[in-house]
Amino acid sequence: MTSFIEQRALYQPRYPSALKAISSLGAVEVGKSDPDISADQLSQLKSLFPNTFGQSVIEMQPAKVESEQKNLKPLTVAVVLSGGQAPGGHNVICGLYEALQQISPKSRLIGFKGGPSGILKDDYVMVERAEVDLFRNTGGFNMLGSGRTKIETPEQFKTCAEVLKKHDVNGLVVIGGDDSNTNAALLAEFFKTENSKVKVIGVPKTIDGDLKNKYVEASFGFDTAVRLYSELISNISRDAQSARKYYHFIRLMGRAASHITLEAALQTHPNIVLISEEVETENKGLFDVVEDVVQVIVARAEAGKDYGVVLVPEGLIEFIPEIRALFNELNNIMADNREHLTTLNSFTSKNEYINHKLSKDASYTFSSLPTDIQRQLLMDRDPHGNVQVSRIETEKLLIELVEGRLSELKSKGDYKGSFAHQSHFLGYEGRCAAPTNFDADYAYSLGLTAGALLNLGVTGYMSVVKNLTKDRDQWQAIGVPLTTMMNIEQRNGAKKPVIKKSLVSLNGAPFERLKEKRTHWKLSDDYRFSGAIQYFGPAEVCDQIPKSLRLEHEAYHSVKDC
Amino acid sequence: MTSFIEQRALYQPRYPSALKAISSLGAVEVGKSDPDISADQLSQLKSLFPNTFGQSVIEMQPAKVESEQKNLKPLTVAVVLSGGQAPGGHNVICGLYEALQQISPKSRLIGFKGGPSGILKDDYVMVERAEVDLFRNTGGFNMLGSGRTKIETPEQFKTCAEVLKKHDVNGLVVIGGDDSNTNAALLAEFFKTENSKVKVIGVPKTIDGDLKNKYVEASFGFDTAVRLYSELISNISRDAQSARKYYHFIRLMGRAASHITLEAALQTHPNIVLISEEVETENKGLFDVVEDVVQVIVARAEAGKDYGVVLVPEGLIEFIPEIRALFNELNNIMADNREHLTTLNSFTSKNEYINHKLSKDASYTFSSLPTDIQRQLLMDRDPHGNVQVSRIETEKLLIELVEGRLSELKSKGDYKGSFAHQSHFLGYEGRCAAPTNFDADYAYSLGLTAGALLNLGVTGYMSVVKNLTKDRDQWQAIGVPLTTMMNIEQRNGAKKPVIKKSLVSLNGAPFERLKEKRTHWKLSDDYRFSGAIQYFGPAEVCDQIPKSLRLEHEAYHSVKDC
Repeated sequence: MTSFIEQRALYQPRYPSALKAISSLGAVEVGKSDPDISADQLSQLKSLFPNTFGQSVIEMQPAKVESEQKNLKPLTVAVVLSGGQAPGGHNVICGLYEALQQISPKSRLIGFKGGPSGILKDDYVMVERAEVDLFRNTGGFNMLGSGRTKIETPEQFKTCAEVLKKHDVNGLVVIGGDDSNTNAALLAEFFKTENSKVKVIGVPKTIDGDLKNKYVEASFGFDTAVRLYSELISNISRDAQSARKYYHFIRLMGRAASHITLEAALQTHPNIVLISEEVETENKGLFDVVEDVVQVIVARAEAGKDYGVVLVPEGLIEFIPEIRALFNELNNIMADNREHLTTLNSFTSKNEYINHKLSKDASYTFSSLPTDIQRQLLMDRDPHGNVQVSRIETEKLLIELVEGRLSELKSKGDYKGSFAHQSHFLGYEGRCAAPTNFDADYAYSLGLTAGALLNLGVTGYMSVVKNLTKDRDQWQAIGVPLTTMMNIEQRNGAKKPVIKKSLVSLNGAPFERLKEKRTHWKLSDDYRFSGAIQYFGPAEVCDQIPKSLRLEHEAYHSVKDC
Repeated sequence: MTSFIEQRALYQPRYPSALKAISSLGAVEVGKSDPDISADQLSQLKSLFPNTFGQSVIEMQPAKVESEQKNLKPLTVAVVLSGGQAPGGHNVICGLYEALQQISPKSRLIGFKGGPSGILKDDYVMVERAEVDLFRNTGGFNMLGSGRTKIETPEQFKTCAEVLKKHDVNGLVVIGGDDSNTNAALLAEFFKTENSKVKVIGVPKTIDGDLKNKYVEASFGFDTAVRLYSELISNISRDAQSARKYYHFIRLMGRAASHITLEAALQTHPNIVLISEEVETENKGLFDVVEDVVQVIVARAEAGKDYGVVLVPEGLIEFIPEIRALFNELNNIMADNREHLTTLNSFTSKNEYINHKLSKDASYTFSSLPTDIQRQLLMDRDPHGNVQVSRIETEKLLIELVEGRLSELKSKGDYKGSFAHQSHFLGYEGRCAAPTNFDADYAYSLGLTAGALLNLGVTGYMSVVKNLTKDRDQWQAIGVPLTTMMNIEQRNGAKKPVIKKSLVSLNGAPFERLKEKRTHWKLSDDYRFSGAIQYFGPAEVCDQIPKSLRLEHEAYHSVKDC
């Protein structure tokens, strides 16, 4: 009996018809656009990227004349996977490999291991046909591993250049999120300044969905991860509705932005959905959020329903102004008093010491939090000295505060239900699922496009595939200058060029749809069962794409079933 | 675009060919077997079940002579879902409905709502064609809801009889686990004693896999739940292997028995698998278990691997003798001093008070546990005054103890790795998944068999389908007297007849296979990727059955790929 993985390996990813013959593609300029930022920021960007700023967006199309066909000599390309896993990473590499083979069977693909640090350590494998056949359509980054090391310092840039030169590399493909693509832009600029032949291409990866802009319709991995989370939320919702005795508070991965939570809500119709960006815009305090949840629970209890499903985005807590202020103070106090704090062994003594140093407001906020959360805030710190938001169990925090408020209401006779609860965190389960057809096709197309861009000899570009709501053969393969997506932000006290993170837009169609539906979802049990990701069935179940993507790019009313 | 659920509704469950014509089936006696228990227990059982003990196991086969065809008059049957959700519950009801329709289109199916208490409250819906078409192949128990109320007292028996009489019910089908089936046996005996016409049939349901014996090869729901958990474990393993920085401790549902953990291990090949039954048999203490885990982590660190996957069965902690002893003492102390304890508001004061009353051994065990776990042990109590094992975060307990031991080893220079960790609990995500083909077919067949048994007019039987590793048309539909599976156990101070829970046998083939493989799994990353449950693809991926089931019923060496 063959396994899932053997059967899935047989799937042939689909891709834009323009990419059928990589070697005969030319680039058509489809526009030159500066980022939409202040003149001051623009001039800073220009000075940071003197050689790569201001390039045109290009579309890959069959070349009109022979001369437009650029390099057809073998290419030696290096590839790295950077940051958190996202389903489809292997398919980017497979697509890239096929593109290079088309250009010349003598092309070589070097996979640096463990993320960008693999370049610095010169730790690599040659990606050959065997690897490509083994890893096609599989999830995970285990072909090469990944890592979060950045190539930032002048010494690192130098080492990187030396290693790539040693391997006679023409092109470097960086598969990563916003930070990694920013890094790719800096590398591209550096190589150009140094007259190195290495061209750098970025590929937009992240399950969080926050690498999105007027060119990039989606990052690969988002679809698969959210479909997996939606499967689990569906199952849990059905459990809630069957057992009729628990509120399930489900925290969802996704760092700062609430895209995952929003898409999962459109897929599954929970009773309550918190969207961080809305909480921030409405300037809600923690107790306002709790009150919103409590009101739904009270109303459901009156309808005889002491169960339900609540979706909580991982980043929520940071979007609550009073908590963000507390975090900032805590981070500073803990950084300024690191040595003294190590001498305080008990939570109580640490707590007293810190509370003493907090402002009145922050102290009030801190002491209103449950002890477990206070503990988490004092213990977990990331390497930069910041609170590790992803380790704060916001779902449990909410449960505890909701429980307290409900028992208050109960004693006044304003709530007659019973509140039993379960908490969940959905994150690591989804980052390495086998990519959906959409992500398998999309990531493969991004890999082909990256190869095509390298063949054209451009650098500092992101591989982009557009028209994603259309059939695959109508997808468009384009290259977008990385600097086009940048602005200047304050990071660790310095001004840095960064690709702007996309947050959920409260004016966008996906949020619009949520607002339209959520009142109905509160009291009704209109849970939508999204089912397990299907890879082999009819197109109706295998070829779905994210509902938020459709809402963003199709006519609002044509997007049904959410 | 149609949804997963609409497409899945089209699936036609397969069933034993013998069940093609329910109305022409006869019963063939295939043996009379008493439970394998002491003579003393046997005689107690006989006296508890004077009317229903000693019936024969029967197989449903086409009747040889017309006269063997029993009742073909319309039947009025009541059905209840009892206890925790398990994928396939709706298909039992659908199969039962189709059987009744075959017997006579005038048959009626009454679904009592919210579990057995629905009978007592006379809260029901009529199950009609529309419900059957809507719920076929779906997970959850939301068609009727479920509940854990038992019909136990003489008053409840009387009410139950009255309600069923009011509806002119001929047959009652109880879909549940060991306890619910025990209850079904008691009801069958009661109705027979009272000369009521109500016949009672049980159907073996539980994801835990602990309702299994020489007749019952599996309970429905186990396959789907474990496949779902295995999908998630696979994804997490791939994440571990890709990121190379976390140990994932994954606790798995399954109450006392470790069947789910064992099957999930055979599906996914984790680095470490704890099996409660083995821990108990080897009389391991908590620190022995921790030491086993630590040894693997140290060995992996030496191989440069600071990551891995550890499976922990939910019931583990109760199988550790010292902890079980502690639980018993705690339960008694807390029951005996309930009133005084409510006056102690802080954890510290409760802790002091209780520690004072514990035996020396128990006190030592208690104080060796991390504070969070101590807290859980003092707070959470079930309605019977017992520790709620499922709410103890054993995975976090292990992490904390492992971490402590590793830092000890590190300070001695015996461990050079770094130990970062993530914890997971997989439970509610799996109980309401859409049933796999296996569970959809099996549950449907159990429903048909229940209908056939009622048509034959028998009572106190369990609907059983055998030969599950064969093709569906070779499956055998049999009826097994419920008393055949029973023994007498001490429960809450009284001797009660109960269906014996099946624990993992350390001599069984599934555990044998685990032992054969696990040494290799420790250091290698031989993770098996089981993939998402597929409903539409080729038989290779859609028609799998549990590996432990195959190991138990097929030649050991013919079961590969685990």
